[in-house]
Amino acid sequence: MAVPTQKPSSPHQKLEQIVILGLPSFLKRQDKEFSSKFQFLSPSESNLPLDQFLEAEAQNTQAAVCSAGFKISAEVLHHLPSLRLIVTVSAGLNHIDLSECRKRGISVANAGNIYSADVADLAVGMIIDVMRKISAGNRFVKTGLWPKQGNFPLGSKLGGKQVGIVGLGSIGVEVAKRLEAFGCKISYYSRKKKHFSSYTFHSNIHDLAFASDILVICCALTEQTRHMINREVLLALGKEGLIVNVARGAVIDEKELVRCLVQQKIAGAGLDVFEHEPHVPRELFGLDNVVVSPLLS
Amino acid sequence: MAVPTQKPSSPHQKLEQIVILGLPSFLKRQDKEFSSKFQFLSPSESNLPLDQFLEAEAQNTQAAVCSAGFKISAEVLHHLPSLRLIVTVSAGLNHIDLSECRKRGISVANAGNIYSADVADLAVGMIIDVMRKISAGNRFVKTGLWPKQGNFPLGSKLGGKQVGIVGLGSIGVEVAKRLEAFGCKISYYSRKKKHFSSYTFHSNIHDLAFASDILVICCALTEQTRHMINREVLLALGKEGLIVNVARGAVIDEKELVRCLVQQKIAGAGLDVFEHEPHVPRELFGLDNVVVSPLLS
Repeated sequence: MAVPTQKPSSPHQKLEQIVILGLPSFLKRQDKEFSSKFQFLSPSESNLPLDQFLEAEAQNTQAAVCSAGFKISAEVLHHLPSLRLIVTVSAGLNHIDLSECRKRGISVANAGNIYSADVADLAVGMIIDVMRKISAGNRFVKTGLWPKQGNFPLGSKLGGKQVGIVGLGSIGVEVAKRLEAFGCKISYYSRKKKHFSSYTFHSNIHDLAFASDILVICCALTEQTRHMINREVLLALGKEGLIVNVARGAVIDEKELVRCLVQQKIAGAGLDVFEHEPHVPRELFGLDNVVVSPLLS
Repeated sequence: MAVPTQKPSSPHQKLEQIVILGLPSFLKRQDKEFSSKFQFLSPSESNLPLDQFLEAEAQNTQAAVCSAGFKISAEVLHHLPSLRLIVTVSAGLNHIDLSECRKRGISVANAGNIYSADVADLAVGMIIDVMRKISAGNRFVKTGLWPKQGNFPLGSKLGGKQVGIVGLGSIGVEVAKRLEAFGCKISYYSRKKKHFSSYTFHSNIHDLAFASDILVICCALTEQTRHMINREVLLALGKEGLIVNVARGAVIDEKELVRCLVQQKIAGAGLDVFEHEPHVPRELFGLDNVVVSPLLS
Protein backbone atom coordinates (compact mmCIF):
# COMPACT_ATOMS: atom_id res chain seq x y z
CA MET A 1 0.00 0.00 0.00
CA ALA A 2 1.50 3.35 -1.07
CA VAL A 3 2.16 5.85 1.71
CA PRO A 4 1.74 9.55 0.96
CA THR A 5 5.16 11.17 1.08
CA GLN A 6 3.81 14.72 1.46
CA LYS A 7 0.67 16.48 2.62
CA PRO A 8 -1.85 17.21 -0.16
CA SER A 9 -1.60 20.83 -1.34
CA SER A 10 -4.29 23.27 -0.13
CA PRO A 11 -7.21 23.23 -2.58
CA HIS A 12 -6.34 26.46 -4.40
CA GLN A 13 -2.56 26.47 -4.01
CA LYS A 14 -1.62 25.42 -7.53
CA LEU A 15 -4.76 26.40 -9.46
CA GLU A 16 -4.65 29.10 -12.11
CA GLN A 17 -6.61 32.16 -11.04
CA ILE A 18 -9.31 33.59 -13.30
CA VAL A 19 -11.07 36.81 -12.37
CA ILE A 20 -14.69 36.99 -13.47
CA LEU A 21 -15.84 40.46 -14.48
CA GLY A 22 -19.54 40.65 -15.22
CA LEU A 23 -20.18 37.11 -14.06
CA PRO A 24 -21.30 35.14 -17.11
CA SER A 25 -23.95 32.85 -15.76
CA PHE A 26 -22.75 29.83 -17.75
CA LEU A 27 -19.57 29.82 -15.67
CA LYS A 28 -21.58 29.79 -12.46
CA ARG A 29 -23.61 26.86 -13.73
CA GLN A 30 -20.56 24.89 -14.82
CA ASP A 31 -18.20 25.81 -12.02
CA LYS A 32 -18.08 22.26 -10.63
CA GLU A 33 -16.53 21.12 -13.87
CA PHE A 34 -13.95 23.89 -13.89
CA SER A 35 -13.23 24.21 -10.18
CA SER A 36 -10.73 21.38 -10.19
CA LYS A 37 -8.62 23.31 -12.68
CA PHE A 38 -9.14 26.98 -11.88
CA GLN A 39 -9.64 29.25 -8.92
CA PHE A 40 -12.37 31.75 -9.78
CA LEU A 41 -12.21 35.22 -8.23
CA SER A 42 -15.62 36.88 -8.20
CA PRO A 43 -15.57 40.54 -7.20
CA SER A 44 -19.37 40.65 -7.48
CA GLU A 45 -19.61 38.14 -4.63
CA SER A 46 -17.33 40.20 -2.38
CA ASN A 47 -18.38 43.06 -0.13
CA LEU A 48 -15.28 45.03 -1.14
CA PRO A 49 -15.44 47.68 -3.88
CA LEU A 50 -13.95 46.39 -7.16
CA ASP A 51 -10.62 48.23 -6.93
CA GLN A 52 -10.01 47.07 -3.33
CA PHE A 53 -10.98 43.50 -4.22
CA LEU A 54 -8.58 43.43 -7.18
CA GLU A 55 -5.75 44.98 -5.08
CA ALA A 56 -6.31 42.43 -2.32
CA GLU A 57 -6.95 39.26 -4.32
CA ALA A 58 -5.93 39.55 -7.96
CA GLN A 59 -2.42 40.99 -8.10
CA ASN A 60 -1.03 37.76 -9.59
CA THR A 61 -4.06 36.91 -11.74
CA GLN A 62 -3.11 36.45 -15.37
CA ALA A 63 -6.54 35.77 -16.93
CA ALA A 64 -9.98 37.43 -16.87
CA VAL A 65 -13.34 36.32 -18.26
CA CYS A 66 -15.88 39.07 -18.89
CA SER A 67 -19.26 39.78 -20.46
CA ALA A 68 -20.40 42.69 -22.62
CA GLY A 69 -22.06 44.49 -19.74
CA PHE A 70 -18.78 44.97 -17.82
CA LYS A 71 -16.60 47.90 -18.88
CA ILE A 72 -12.90 46.93 -18.84
CA SER A 73 -11.44 50.42 -18.61
CA ALA A 74 -7.80 51.51 -18.27
CA GLU A 75 -8.52 51.91 -14.56
CA VAL A 76 -9.68 48.31 -14.13
CA LEU A 77 -6.59 47.14 -16.04
CA HIS A 78 -4.39 49.25 -13.74
CA HIS A 79 -5.61 47.13 -10.81
CA LEU A 80 -4.70 43.88 -12.60
CA PRO A 81 -0.94 44.30 -13.18
CA SER A 82 -0.28 40.61 -14.02
CA LEU A 83 -3.10 40.28 -16.53
CA ARG A 84 -2.07 38.63 -19.84
CA LEU A 85 -5.43 37.50 -21.27
CA ILE A 86 -9.02 38.73 -21.40
CA VAL A 87 -11.70 36.39 -22.76
CA THR A 88 -15.05 38.04 -23.39
CA VAL A 89 -18.10 35.82 -23.87
CA SER A 90 -19.53 38.45 -26.24
CA ALA A 91 -18.87 38.86 -29.94
CA GLY A 92 -18.45 42.64 -29.54
CA LEU A 93 -15.31 44.17 -27.98
CA ASN A 94 -16.58 47.70 -27.44
CA HIS A 95 -16.60 47.30 -23.63
CA ILE A 96 -12.83 46.67 -23.52
CA ASP A 97 -10.21 49.42 -23.75
CA LEU A 98 -8.30 47.75 -26.57
CA SER A 99 -5.57 50.36 -26.92
CA GLU A 100 -4.77 50.05 -23.20
CA CYS A 101 -4.66 46.23 -23.63
CA ARG A 102 -2.25 46.66 -26.53
CA LYS A 103 -0.04 48.95 -24.43
CA ARG A 104 0.06 46.40 -21.58
CA GLY A 105 0.58 43.37 -23.85
CA ILE A 106 -2.76 41.82 -22.87
CA SER A 107 -4.29 39.43 -25.42
CA VAL A 108 -8.04 39.70 -26.00
CA ALA A 109 -10.23 36.86 -27.27
CA ASN A 110 -13.93 37.06 -28.09
CA ALA A 111 -16.74 34.65 -28.91
CA GLY A 112 -16.09 34.88 -32.65
CA ASN A 113 -19.06 33.89 -34.78
CA ILE A 114 -20.72 31.38 -32.47
CA TYR A 115 -23.74 33.64 -31.82
CA SER A 116 -24.12 34.90 -35.39
CA ALA A 117 -26.88 32.51 -36.47
CA ASP A 118 -28.88 33.08 -33.28
CA VAL A 119 -28.56 36.86 -33.53
CA ALA A 120 -29.67 36.65 -37.16
CA ASP A 121 -32.68 34.53 -36.12
CA LEU A 122 -33.68 37.23 -33.65
CA ALA A 123 -33.25 39.99 -36.24
CA VAL A 124 -35.54 38.16 -38.68
CA GLY A 125 -38.00 37.33 -35.89
CA MET A 126 -38.21 41.01 -34.92
CA ILE A 127 -38.71 42.06 -38.56
CA ILE A 128 -41.63 39.64 -39.00
CA ASP A 129 -42.99 40.58 -35.58
CA VAL A 130 -43.14 44.31 -36.35
CA MET A 131 -44.31 43.94 -39.96
CA ARG A 132 -46.97 41.32 -39.23
CA LYS A 133 -47.86 42.81 -35.81
CA ILE A 134 -47.33 39.52 -33.97
CA SER A 135 -46.68 40.94 -30.48
CA ALA A 136 -49.44 43.54 -30.90
CA GLY A 137 -51.94 40.95 -32.18
CA ASN A 138 -51.01 38.55 -29.38
CA ARG A 139 -51.71 41.28 -26.82
CA PHE A 140 -54.98 42.19 -28.60
CA VAL A 141 -56.24 38.61 -28.29
CA LYS A 142 -54.94 38.00 -24.76
CA THR A 143 -56.61 41.12 -23.40
CA GLY A 144 -59.93 39.81 -24.74
CA LEU A 145 -60.39 42.48 -27.42
CA TRP A 146 -60.94 40.26 -30.49
CA PRO A 147 -64.62 39.39 -29.86
CA LYS A 148 -65.31 42.99 -28.76
CA GLN A 149 -63.49 45.00 -31.43
CA GLY A 150 -63.52 42.63 -34.42
CA ASN A 151 -60.61 41.91 -36.71
CA PHE A 152 -57.15 43.43 -36.22
CA PRO A 153 -55.56 45.72 -38.85
CA LEU A 154 -53.47 43.98 -41.52
CA GLY A 155 -49.69 44.32 -41.35
CA SER A 156 -47.20 44.61 -44.21
CA LYS A 157 -45.92 41.99 -46.60
CA LEU A 158 -42.28 40.88 -46.24
CA GLY A 159 -41.82 39.42 -49.74
CA GLY A 160 -40.23 41.80 -52.24
CA LYS A 161 -38.96 44.25 -49.62
CA GLN A 162 -35.59 45.94 -50.03
CA VAL A 163 -33.42 45.11 -47.05
CA GLY A 164 -30.29 47.12 -46.27
CA ILE A 165 -27.70 45.36 -44.12
CA VAL A 166 -25.38 47.69 -42.22
CA GLY A 167 -22.17 45.69 -41.77
CA LEU A 168 -21.91 42.52 -43.84
CA GLY A 169 -19.94 40.54 -41.27
CA SER A 170 -20.88 37.08 -40.04
CA ILE A 171 -24.22 38.26 -38.55
CA GLY A 172 -25.09 40.37 -41.61
CA VAL A 173 -24.42 37.44 -43.94
CA GLU A 174 -26.68 35.17 -41.85
CA VAL A 175 -29.47 37.78 -41.81
CA ALA A 176 -29.21 38.19 -45.59
CA LYS A 177 -29.28 34.44 -46.21
CA ARG A 178 -32.50 34.06 -44.18
CA LEU A 179 -34.26 37.06 -45.73
CA GLU A 180 -33.48 35.90 -49.26
CA ALA A 181 -35.61 32.83 -48.49
CA PHE A 182 -38.51 35.23 -47.76
CA GLY A 183 -38.14 36.88 -51.18
CA CYS A 184 -36.42 40.04 -49.91
CA LYS A 185 -33.84 41.89 -51.99
CA ILE A 186 -30.55 42.48 -50.20
CA SER A 187 -28.11 45.36 -50.36
CA TYR A 188 -25.50 46.45 -47.83
CA TYR A 189 -23.15 49.13 -46.56
CA SER A 190 -19.75 48.41 -45.11
CA ARG A 191 -16.34 50.03 -45.06
CA LYS A 192 -15.30 48.14 -48.18
CA LYS A 193 -17.13 46.24 -50.91
CA LYS A 194 -17.12 42.53 -50.05
CA HIS A 195 -15.82 40.57 -52.98
CA PHE A 196 -17.39 37.32 -51.76
CA SER A 197 -20.87 38.83 -52.07
CA SER A 198 -23.11 39.56 -55.04
CA TYR A 199 -25.46 41.79 -53.01
CA THR A 200 -25.70 45.45 -54.07
CA PHE A 201 -23.06 47.54 -52.29
CA HIS A 202 -23.69 51.14 -51.19
CA SER A 203 -20.61 53.13 -50.31
CA ASN A 204 -22.48 55.40 -47.92
CA ILE A 205 -25.10 54.78 -45.28
CA HIS A 206 -27.51 57.47 -46.54
CA ASP A 207 -27.80 55.86 -49.96
CA LEU A 208 -28.44 52.47 -48.35
CA ALA A 209 -31.12 53.90 -46.04
CA PHE A 210 -32.80 55.71 -48.91
CA ALA A 211 -32.88 52.52 -51.02
CA SER A 212 -34.20 50.33 -48.17
CA ASP A 213 -37.59 49.38 -46.75
CA ILE A 214 -35.88 47.65 -43.83
CA LEU A 215 -32.49 48.62 -42.36
CA VAL A 216 -30.76 45.96 -40.22
CA ILE A 217 -27.85 47.12 -38.07
CA CYS A 218 -25.26 44.33 -37.71
CA CYS A 219 -21.94 46.21 -37.48
CA ALA A 220 -19.47 46.49 -34.61
CA LEU A 221 -19.64 49.56 -32.33
CA THR A 222 -16.46 51.58 -32.86
CA GLU A 223 -15.63 55.27 -32.71
CA GLN A 224 -16.48 55.35 -36.47
CA THR A 225 -19.90 53.71 -36.10
CA ARG A 226 -21.07 55.44 -32.88
CA HIS A 227 -24.27 57.38 -33.73
CA MET A 228 -23.74 56.54 -37.42
CA ILE A 229 -27.53 56.10 -37.62
CA ASN A 230 -28.50 59.73 -36.98
CA ARG A 231 -31.61 61.76 -37.81
CA GLU A 232 -30.58 62.23 -41.46
CA VAL A 233 -30.17 58.48 -42.00
CA LEU A 234 -33.54 57.81 -40.33
CA LEU A 235 -35.24 60.43 -42.51
CA ALA A 236 -33.65 58.82 -45.58
CA LEU A 237 -35.13 55.48 -44.48
CA GLY A 238 -38.47 57.27 -44.45
CA LYS A 239 -42.06 56.97 -43.27
CA GLU A 240 -42.53 53.42 -44.56
CA GLY A 241 -39.13 52.27 -43.27
CA LEU A 242 -38.40 49.81 -40.48
CA ILE A 243 -35.14 49.72 -38.51
CA VAL A 244 -33.81 46.69 -36.64
CA ASN A 245 -30.76 46.85 -34.37
CA VAL A 246 -29.00 43.67 -33.20
CA ALA A 247 -25.56 45.33 -32.94
CA ARG A 248 -25.01 47.78 -30.07
CA GLY A 249 -27.41 50.50 -28.93
CA ALA A 250 -24.99 53.37 -29.52
CA VAL A 251 -24.66 52.69 -33.26
CA ILE A 252 -27.99 54.58 -33.37
CA ASP A 253 -28.48 58.03 -31.88
CA GLU A 254 -31.19 56.76 -29.54
CA LYS A 255 -32.73 60.16 -28.78
CA GLU A 256 -33.22 60.82 -32.50
CA LEU A 257 -34.58 57.31 -33.04
CA VAL A 258 -37.19 57.87 -30.31
CA ARG A 259 -38.07 61.26 -31.81
CA CYS A 260 -38.47 59.79 -35.31
CA LEU A 261 -40.67 56.96 -33.99
CA VAL A 262 -42.87 59.30 -31.93
CA GLN A 263 -43.17 61.73 -34.87
CA GLN A 264 -43.87 58.81 -37.25
CA LYS A 265 -40.92 59.75 -39.47
CA ILE A 266 -40.19 56.00 -39.70
CA ALA A 267 -42.69 53.14 -39.57
CA GLY A 268 -41.32 50.98 -36.76
CA ALA A 269 -38.37 49.39 -35.01
CA GLY A 270 -37.12 46.09 -33.60
CA LEU A 271 -34.52 46.75 -30.93
CA ASP A 272 -32.36 44.14 -29.20
CA VAL A 273 -29.91 46.74 -27.85
CA PHE A 274 -30.07 50.18 -26.23
CA GLU A 275 -27.63 52.94 -25.37
CA HIS A 276 -28.08 52.68 -21.58
CA GLU A 277 -29.19 49.12 -20.80
CA PRO A 278 -31.23 48.08 -18.88
CA HIS A 279 -32.86 51.50 -19.37
CA VAL A 280 -35.12 51.69 -22.40
CA PRO A 281 -36.70 55.05 -23.34
CA ARG A 282 -40.22 55.09 -21.86
CA GLU A 283 -41.61 56.76 -24.99
CA LEU A 284 -41.25 53.37 -26.71
CA PHE A 285 -43.36 51.48 -24.15
CA GLY A 286 -46.70 52.51 -25.67
CA LEU A 287 -45.73 52.02 -29.33
CA ASP A 288 -47.16 48.84 -30.91
CA ASN A 289 -44.88 49.32 -33.93
CA VAL A 290 -41.78 48.95 -31.76
CA VAL A 291 -40.69 45.53 -30.48
CA VAL A 292 -37.95 45.52 -27.85
CA SER A 293 -35.88 42.68 -26.43
CA PRO A 294 -34.14 42.63 -23.03
CA LEU A 295 -30.73 41.08 -22.34
CA LEU A 296 -31.13 37.34 -21.92
CA SER A 297 -29.05 35.06 -19.73
CA MET B 1 -77.25 68.39 -80.44
CA ALA B 2 -78.19 64.76 -79.95
CA VAL B 3 -81.57 64.16 -78.41
CA PRO B 4 -81.99 61.14 -76.14
CA THR B 5 -84.33 58.68 -77.80
CA GLN B 6 -85.11 56.76 -74.60
CA LYS B 7 -84.96 57.28 -70.87
CA PRO B 8 -81.70 56.14 -69.26
CA SER B 9 -82.08 52.74 -67.62
CA SER B 10 -82.38 52.62 -63.83
CA PRO B 11 -78.92 52.44 -62.34
CA HIS B 12 -78.98 48.73 -61.49
CA GLN B 13 -81.19 47.42 -64.25
CA LYS B 14 -78.51 45.80 -66.40
CA LEU B 15 -75.75 45.21 -63.87
CA GLU B 16 -74.78 41.69 -62.89
CA GLN B 17 -75.73 40.97 -59.29
CA ILE B 18 -73.16 39.65 -56.83
CA VAL B 19 -74.21 38.65 -53.34
CA ILE B 20 -71.55 39.27 -50.69
CA LEU B 21 -71.53 36.71 -47.92
CA GLY B 22 -69.11 37.53 -45.11
CA LEU B 23 -68.33 40.96 -46.50
CA PRO B 24 -64.65 40.92 -47.50
CA SER B 25 -63.47 44.37 -46.57
CA PHE B 26 -61.40 44.81 -49.74
CA LEU B 27 -64.64 44.85 -51.75
CA LYS B 28 -66.08 47.57 -49.55
CA ARG B 29 -62.95 49.65 -50.04
CA GLN B 30 -62.94 49.20 -53.81
CA ASP B 31 -66.67 49.35 -54.45
CA LYS B 32 -66.42 52.60 -56.43
CA GLU B 33 -64.28 50.82 -58.98
CA PHE B 34 -66.66 47.88 -59.26
CA SER B 35 -70.00 49.60 -58.85
CA SER B 36 -70.23 50.60 -62.50
CA LYS B 37 -70.09 46.92 -63.44
CA PHE B 38 -71.84 45.05 -60.65
CA GLN B 39 -74.72 45.45 -58.28
CA PHE B 40 -73.61 44.25 -54.86
CA LEU B 41 -76.19 42.70 -52.55
CA SER B 42 -75.09 42.89 -48.93
CA PRO B 43 -77.31 40.93 -46.53
CA SER B 44 -75.17 42.16 -43.62
CA GLU B 45 -76.29 45.72 -44.38
CA SER B 46 -79.97 44.75 -44.39
CA ASN B 47 -82.27 44.54 -41.38
CA LEU B 48 -83.84 41.35 -42.77
CA PRO B 49 -82.65 37.92 -41.59
CA LEU B 50 -80.39 36.26 -44.18
CA ASP B 51 -82.97 33.82 -45.56
CA GLN B 52 -85.60 36.55 -46.00
CA PHE B 53 -83.07 38.87 -47.61
CA LEU B 54 -82.00 36.21 -50.11
CA GLU B 55 -85.66 35.28 -50.89
CA ALA B 56 -86.54 38.95 -51.45
CA GLU B 57 -83.45 40.19 -53.31
CA ALA B 58 -81.30 37.38 -54.65
CA GLN B 59 -83.52 34.94 -56.50
CA ASN B 60 -81.84 35.75 -59.84
CA THR B 61 -78.32 36.22 -58.50
CA GLN B 62 -75.81 33.98 -60.25
CA ALA B 63 -72.61 34.85 -58.37
CA ALA B 64 -71.52 35.08 -54.73
CA VAL B 65 -68.31 36.31 -53.12
CA CYS B 66 -67.57 35.03 -49.63
CA SER B 67 -64.91 34.90 -46.96
CA ALA B 68 -63.77 32.03 -44.75
CA GLY B 69 -65.84 33.20 -41.79
CA PHE B 70 -69.18 32.72 -43.60
CA LYS B 71 -70.60 29.18 -43.70
CA ILE B 72 -72.16 28.43 -47.10
CA SER B 73 -74.42 25.58 -46.06
CA ALA B 74 -76.98 23.62 -48.08
CA GLU B 75 -79.61 25.85 -46.53
CA VAL B 76 -77.96 29.06 -47.75
CA LEU B 77 -77.64 27.51 -51.22
CA HIS B 78 -81.34 26.58 -51.12
CA HIS B 79 -82.16 30.30 -50.88
CA LEU B 80 -80.00 31.10 -53.93
CA PRO B 81 -81.64 29.01 -56.69
CA SER B 82 -79.93 30.80 -59.61
CA LEU B 83 -76.41 30.62 -58.18
CA ARG B 84 -73.76 29.37 -60.65
CA LEU B 85 -70.50 30.59 -59.09
CA ILE B 86 -69.03 31.06 -55.61
CA VAL B 87 -65.72 32.90 -55.27
CA THR B 88 -64.14 32.70 -51.84
CA VAL B 89 -61.35 35.13 -50.96
CA SER B 90 -59.81 32.42 -48.75
CA ALA B 91 -57.46 29.63 -49.76
CA GLY B 92 -59.46 27.10 -47.68
CA LEU B 93 -62.83 25.77 -48.82
CA ASN B 94 -63.98 24.13 -45.58
CA HIS B 95 -66.73 26.74 -45.03
CA ILE B 96 -68.50 25.76 -48.28
CA ASP B 97 -70.72 22.68 -48.65
CA LEU B 98 -68.89 21.39 -51.72
CA SER B 99 -71.04 18.30 -52.28
CA GLU B 100 -74.19 20.46 -52.33
CA CYS B 101 -72.45 22.79 -54.82
CA ARG B 102 -71.58 19.79 -57.00
CA LYS B 103 -75.23 18.63 -56.86
CA ARG B 104 -76.48 22.07 -57.89
CA GLY B 105 -73.84 22.61 -60.61
CA ILE B 106 -72.30 25.57 -58.81
CA SER B 107 -68.64 26.29 -59.63
CA VAL B 108 -66.36 27.22 -56.72
CA ALA B 109 -63.18 29.28 -57.04
CA ASN B 110 -60.73 30.07 -54.24
CA ALA B 111 -57.74 32.33 -53.74
CA GLY B 112 -55.28 29.63 -54.86
CA ASN B 113 -51.74 30.17 -53.63
CA ILE B 114 -51.66 33.95 -53.43
CA TYR B 115 -51.48 33.99 -49.62
CA SER B 116 -49.05 31.07 -49.26
CA ALA B 117 -45.87 33.13 -48.85
CA ASP B 118 -47.49 35.48 -46.33
CA VAL B 119 -48.94 32.62 -44.30
CA ALA B 120 -45.51 30.96 -44.31
CA ASP B 121 -43.92 34.23 -43.12
CA LEU B 122 -46.36 34.31 -40.19
CA ALA B 123 -45.66 30.65 -39.35
CA VAL B 124 -41.92 31.31 -39.21
CA GLY B 125 -42.47 34.55 -37.28
CA MET B 126 -44.52 32.71 -34.66
CA ILE B 127 -41.90 29.95 -34.39
CA ILE B 128 -39.12 32.47 -33.73
CA ASP B 129 -41.39 34.47 -31.43
CA VAL B 130 -42.19 31.50 -29.17
CA MET B 131 -38.68 29.99 -29.24
CA ARG B 132 -36.86 33.27 -28.67
CA LYS B 133 -39.59 34.71 -26.40
CA ILE B 134 -39.97 37.88 -28.46
CA SER B 135 -43.52 38.82 -27.39
CA ALA B 136 -42.81 37.85 -23.78
CA GLY B 137 -39.52 39.81 -23.71
CA ASN B 138 -41.21 42.81 -25.33
CA ARG B 139 -43.86 42.81 -22.61
CA PHE B 140 -41.17 42.36 -19.91
CA VAL B 141 -39.35 45.48 -21.10
CA LYS B 142 -42.47 47.57 -21.76
CA THR B 143 -43.89 46.93 -18.30
CA GLY B 144 -40.65 48.30 -16.83
CA LEU B 145 -39.41 45.00 -15.38
CA TRP B 146 -35.92 44.84 -16.93
CA PRO B 147 -34.15 47.26 -14.54
CA LYS B 148 -36.05 45.74 -11.57
CA GLN B 149 -35.75 42.01 -12.26
CA GLY B 150 -32.54 41.81 -14.29
CA ASN B 151 -31.99 39.75 -17.40
CA PHE B 152 -34.72 37.66 -19.01
CA PRO B 153 -34.44 33.85 -19.33
CA LEU B 154 -32.80 32.58 -22.52
CA GLY B 155 -35.01 30.98 -25.18
CA SER B 156 -34.22 28.04 -27.46
CA LYS B 157 -32.02 27.86 -30.53
CA LEU B 158 -33.75 27.42 -33.90
CA GLY B 159 -30.74 26.09 -35.85
CA GLY B 160 -30.58 22.30 -36.09
CA LYS B 161 -34.19 21.72 -35.02
CA GLN B 162 -36.27 18.98 -36.64
CA VAL B 163 -39.34 20.57 -38.23
CA GLY B 164 -42.33 18.42 -39.21
CA ILE B 165 -44.60 19.95 -41.84
CA VAL B 166 -48.17 18.60 -41.79
CA GLY B 167 -49.39 19.01 -45.37
CA LEU B 168 -46.70 19.79 -47.93
CA GLY B 169 -48.90 21.96 -50.16
CA SER B 170 -48.00 25.46 -51.31
CA ILE B 171 -47.89 26.86 -47.75
CA GLY B 172 -45.92 23.88 -46.41
CA VAL B 173 -43.35 24.20 -49.18
CA GLU B 174 -42.89 27.92 -48.43
CA VAL B 175 -42.51 27.25 -44.68
CA ALA B 176 -39.91 24.55 -45.40
CA LYS B 177 -37.92 26.76 -47.77
CA ARG B 178 -37.69 29.51 -45.14
CA LEU B 179 -36.77 27.21 -42.26
CA GLU B 180 -34.01 25.52 -44.28
CA ALA B 181 -32.31 28.93 -44.38
CA PHE B 182 -32.31 28.87 -40.55
CA GLY B 183 -30.54 25.50 -40.50
CA CYS B 184 -33.63 23.44 -39.61
CA LYS B 185 -34.09 19.88 -40.85
CA ILE B 186 -37.38 19.28 -42.64
CA SER B 187 -39.64 16.27 -42.77
CA TYR B 188 -43.35 16.05 -43.57
CA TYR B 189 -46.56 14.09 -43.44
CA SER B 190 -49.14 14.13 -46.20
CA ARG B 191 -51.58 11.69 -47.79
CA LYS B 192 -48.97 10.67 -50.37
CA LYS B 193 -45.21 11.01 -50.69
CA LYS B 194 -44.43 14.08 -52.82
CA HIS B 195 -42.08 13.10 -55.60
CA PHE B 196 -40.95 16.70 -56.16
CA SER B 197 -39.50 16.85 -52.65
CA SER B 198 -36.37 15.39 -51.08
CA TYR B 199 -37.58 16.03 -47.51
CA THR B 200 -38.07 12.98 -45.30
CA PHE B 201 -41.61 11.61 -45.67
CA HIS B 202 -43.53 10.06 -42.74
CA SER B 203 -46.58 8.04 -43.68
CA ASN B 204 -48.32 8.68 -40.37
CA ILE B 205 -48.74 11.77 -38.24
CA HIS B 206 -47.59 10.09 -34.99
CA ASP B 207 -44.21 9.22 -36.44
CA LEU B 208 -43.79 12.77 -37.73
CA ALA B 209 -44.74 14.27 -34.34
CA PHE B 210 -42.38 11.91 -32.51
CA ALA B 211 -39.49 12.83 -34.83
CA SER B 212 -40.12 16.60 -34.63
CA ASP B 213 -39.09 19.46 -32.34
CA ILE B 214 -41.53 21.76 -34.14
CA LEU B 215 -44.77 20.68 -35.83
CA VAL B 216 -46.25 23.14 -38.36
CA ILE B 217 -49.85 22.52 -39.43
CA CYS B 218 -50.36 23.62 -43.06
CA CYS B 219 -52.99 21.19 -44.38
CA ALA B 220 -56.55 21.81 -45.51
CA LEU B 221 -59.38 21.15 -43.04
CA THR B 222 -61.40 18.20 -44.33
CA GLU B 223 -63.38 15.44 -42.64
CA GLN B 224 -60.13 13.42 -42.71
CA THR B 225 -58.00 16.11 -41.03
CA ARG B 226 -60.54 17.36 -38.45
CA HIS B 227 -59.00 16.77 -34.99
CA MET B 228 -56.14 14.86 -36.62
CA ILE B 229 -53.86 16.53 -34.06
CA ASN B 230 -55.26 14.84 -30.96
CA ARG B 231 -53.82 14.15 -27.51
CA GLU B 232 -51.76 11.17 -28.73
CA VAL B 233 -50.09 13.26 -31.45
CA LEU B 234 -49.37 16.06 -28.96
CA LEU B 235 -47.86 13.59 -26.48
CA ALA B 236 -45.71 12.18 -29.31
CA LEU B 237 -44.48 15.72 -30.01
CA GLY B 238 -43.49 15.83 -26.36
CA LYS B 239 -42.41 18.17 -23.57
CA GLU B 240 -39.81 19.98 -25.65
CA GLY B 241 -42.07 20.24 -28.69
CA LEU B 242 -43.62 23.34 -30.22
CA ILE B 243 -46.78 23.34 -32.36
CA VAL B 244 -47.70 26.04 -34.87
CA ASN B 245 -51.06 26.14 -36.65
CA VAL B 246 -51.62 28.35 -39.71
CA ALA B 247 -54.24 26.03 -41.27
CA ARG B 248 -57.68 25.89 -39.59
CA GLY B 249 -58.37 25.65 -35.87
CA ALA B 250 -60.29 22.38 -36.07
CA VAL B 251 -57.32 20.42 -37.48
CA ILE B 252 -56.26 20.37 -33.79
CA ASP B 253 -58.50 19.12 -31.00
CA GLU B 254 -58.39 22.49 -29.26
CA LYS B 255 -59.51 21.24 -25.84
CA GLU B 256 -56.69 18.69 -25.81
CA LEU B 257 -54.21 21.30 -27.02
CA VAL B 258 -55.15 23.62 -24.16
CA ARG B 259 -54.89 20.72 -21.69
CA CYS B 260 -51.43 19.74 -23.00
CA LEU B 261 -50.21 23.34 -22.79
CA VAL B 262 -51.56 23.88 -19.27
CA GLN B 263 -50.12 20.51 -18.13
CA GLN B 264 -46.80 21.32 -19.86
CA LYS B 265 -46.99 18.16 -21.98
CA ILE B 266 -45.71 20.29 -24.88
CA ALA B 267 -43.40 23.31 -24.72
CA GLY B 268 -45.41 25.98 -26.53
CA ALA B 269 -47.63 27.00 -29.41
CA GLY B 270 -48.07 29.62 -32.11
CA LEU B 271 -51.72 29.80 -33.16
CA ASP B 272 -53.13 31.80 -36.06
CA VAL B 273 -56.43 29.90 -36.06
CA PHE B 274 -58.93 28.58 -33.51
CA GLU B 275 -61.92 26.28 -33.49
CA HIS B 276 -64.47 28.95 -32.54
CA GLU B 277 -63.11 32.30 -33.74
CA PRO B 278 -63.13 35.00 -32.45
CA HIS B 279 -63.25 32.99 -29.21
CA VAL B 280 -59.84 31.90 -27.96
CA PRO B 281 -59.62 29.65 -24.88
CA ARG B 282 -58.94 31.90 -21.88
CA GLU B 283 -56.51 29.38 -20.41
CA LEU B 284 -54.04 30.50 -23.11
CA PHE B 285 -54.19 34.19 -22.15
CA GLY B 286 -51.70 33.86 -19.30
CA LEU B 287 -49.21 31.57 -21.06
CA ASP B 288 -46.03 33.31 -22.22
CA ASN B 289 -45.09 30.24 -24.29
CA VAL B 290 -48.20 30.63 -26.44
CA VAL B 291 -48.40 33.33 -29.13
CA VAL B 292 -51.81 33.87 -30.70
CA SER B 293 -52.86 35.89 -33.73
CA PRO B 294 -56.33 37.33 -34.42
CA LEU B 295 -58.00 37.47 -37.82
CA LEU B 296 -56.66 40.46 -39.75
CA SER B 297 -58.51 42.55 -42.28
